[in-house]
Amino acid sequence: MRHDDTVNRPLWLAPDGRRVQIIDQRQLPHAFVIADLAETGDVIRAIREMMVRGAPLIGVTGAYGVYLAVFEADGDRDRFETLCDRIASARPTAVNLVWAVDRVRSAVRDAGSPELWAEAARTAADGICEAEADACRRIGEAGLEIVAEVARKTSEVSKDLETSEVLCRREGEPVRILTHCNAGWLACVEHGTATAPIYAAHQRGIPVQVWVDETRPLNQGARLTAWELGRAEVPHTVIVDNAGGHLMQRGMVDLVIVGTDRTTRTGDVANKIGTYLKALAAHDNGVPFYVALPGSTFDGGLDDGRRIPIEERDPAEVSTVWGIDGETPRTVRLTPVDSPAANYAFDVTPARLVTGFITDRGVCGASEAEICRLFPELIPH
Amino acid sequence: MRHDDTVNRPLWLAPDGRRVQIIDQRQLPHAFVIADLAETGDVIRAIREMMVRGAPLIGVTGAYGVYLAVFEADGDRDRFETLCDRIASARPTAVNLVWAVDRVRSAVRDAGSPELWAEAARTAADGICEAEADACRRIGEAGLEIVAEVARKTSEVSKDLETSEVLCRREGEPVRILTHCNAGWLACVEHGTATAPIYAAHQRGIPVQVWVDETRPLNQGARLTAWELGRAEVPHTVIVDNAGGHLMQRGMVDLVIVGTDRTTRTGDVANKIGTYLKALAAHDNGVPFYVALPGSTFDGGLDDGRRIPIEERDPAEVSTVWGIDGETPRTVRLTPVDSPAANYAFDVTPARLVTGFITDRGVCGASEAEICRLFPELIPH
Repeated sequence: MRHDDTVNRPLWLAPDGRRVQIIDQRQLPHAFVIADLAETGDVIRAIREMMVRGAPLIGVTGAYGVYLAVFEADGDRDRFETLCDRIASARPTAVNLVWAVDRVRSAVRDAGSPELWAEAARTAADGICEAEADACRRIGEAGLEIVAEVARKTSEVSKDLETSEVLCRREGEPVRILTHCNAGWLACVEHGTATAPIYAAHQRGIPVQVWVDETRPLNQGARLTAWELGRAEVPHTVIVDNAGGHLMQRGMVDLVIVGTDRTTRTGDVANKIGTYLKALAAHDNGVPFYVALPGSTFDGGLDDGRRIPIEERDPAEVSTVWGIDGETPRTVRLTPVDSPAANYAFDVTPARLVTGFITDRGVCGASEAEICRLFPELIPH
Repeated sequence: MRHDDTVNRPLWLAPDGRRVQIIDQRQLPHAFVIADLAETGDVIRAIREMMVRGAPLIGVTGAYGVYLAVFEADGDRDRFETLCDRIASARPTAVNLVWAVDRVRSAVRDAGSPELWAEAARTAADGICEAEADACRRIGEAGLEIVAEVARKTSEVSKDLETSEVLCRREGEPVRILTHCNAGWLACVEHGTATAPIYAAHQRGIPVQVWVDETRPLNQGARLTAWELGRAEVPHTVIVDNAGGHLMQRGMVDLVIVGTDRTTRTGDVANKIGTYLKALAAHDNGVPFYVALPGSTFDGGLDDGRRIPIEERDPAEVSTVWGIDGETPRTVRLTPVDSPAANYAFDVTPARLVTGFITDRGVCGASEAEICRLFPELIPH
């Protein structure tokens, strides 16, 4: 496997300014492949087939897709709008995609004559990209406080050790953080969302130990989060999606941090399927459950998570799994030939199970009032 | 694949009376292989490597292991006891193994002179085997009432449809049952535990639709439960372990039925890792959560599920997965080479999350009083 240590973003514009280049995340961790997206069709396929994934990165990819649409439209405004609509509907659940496409599209509309479109689109897309990177850096700073607070509590907790059956953290031991799916820099631009506080703590010398949920069907935990953390030398252990509840019951998790694809202004969280189960277990065991997100992932138009559209994907993602056999990547089937499968890609964790949000504007509780205090632009007019 | 429709039990004594024959469940559903166990070493390996699995079947296998130990001991009582101890400790979590080994061992002790040991052991092992089959038949009868009751409730539930967001079952639609892991006849002798009510309902013409949890790491749902249900033509759909919570939130599950490896007399349930997460989701959504088990799976000596030993297995079961590539069975690795993994095989669902137990003596609630009313032999002396 080629392992390109110079690449620290999952997406960038090629030097010629006419292609978007991405890490093909379907092939990680077993191969490091850079793919070219030269047309909007490539962009849509990359989003749909999850060569790129994660709400913030889907948004950034869509933004650069609009920039590519400018060349394809060649001055034809109707054609441009149609291409933008297609990009915006490549996947249904993440709100960032529609948000980013509309923002770059507006910049093009405002630019006036067609010869100015490309520069307007590029400036807008670059702006979104850098803003996402900066938002994740801020999320890391805000979340660092939470991790540091858990680290400080050690000695207090370990006092109860004699009488407790659970494996409480002892002084000097790492803060044990569970995360689901991949909300790392691969899903964003830099730092990640859920991983940003982890990286920040690791860099400041606060010892952390990450439980990496495998996240079936596509195993973003085992493939992507484990790859990211290993590359950054953050201690981590891969577990199956089934294991998190047991670990929390036994006192082996201090904190859960996940990302989100769309969160209502009332605090209901759509994220990768299985997140809700971990939130239930955290709630049942008194483990703090935080959701890390940039402001762009809040959907001010929704006040009830049950209205978030949940993508159903190809059942083959459930009935098969992809991995490596020696040096050869292979897909193997798990199920009997005749057994049908269903593939719901997301679930919704109700706000009542969320301890708080770690955002680019600081930490807040999971209520409409607290969210809208940090993000007043979400208040409906 | 050879598909032997004449085999309807996972284990039997070979006609020569000197070998135990089993379906090698590691190879299902992609190959149907019958393995011979000729010595206690084979029996221990078959249990440890999960060629046989499931609490009742582990018990029956252990019982016939004691029968084979008689030949190996060749009249040496100390040697016999040592072999029995080894069999009893092949896996730690299921209580049936210790129970069954001790029962056959006692029969041998009571038999007196060595020439009577083999017949005593065989009679005792046969007795346990047939008793397990009969217990599962009774579990099916008891559970049938619960499924039938849900089927009758249809029209009442569907009245609320207009005002409800969730996908309630409409009249004539099947009863939608979620199960985790495999607690089918492959895990028992006949009928299964969790599947017994499903098979009973299907045979009586009550339409059922089973959500089959994949059950990582070893995928007993996708591999074994799906194979069993397909063979019996019971409608089913495989889902990832992460999906059950979402289905329950959307009103797509009417009933959860699982098996157990050991249940305390107070109603705490050790079962395959991930069961606790489904119990939490059922509780959060008002979905009845039943545990099906024969009396032999209750552990009268325990009043707190947190004291049940939880087996930790080889991390390679987590970092790899086994399936079929065309016609070739293969194991593929999912994780980066350097990422560690952890493999906890069971978790404990506290009694407060259990609606009731479906047993060979009828249905009871999840309290010490109700359990001991049906099984007074569990009351400590």
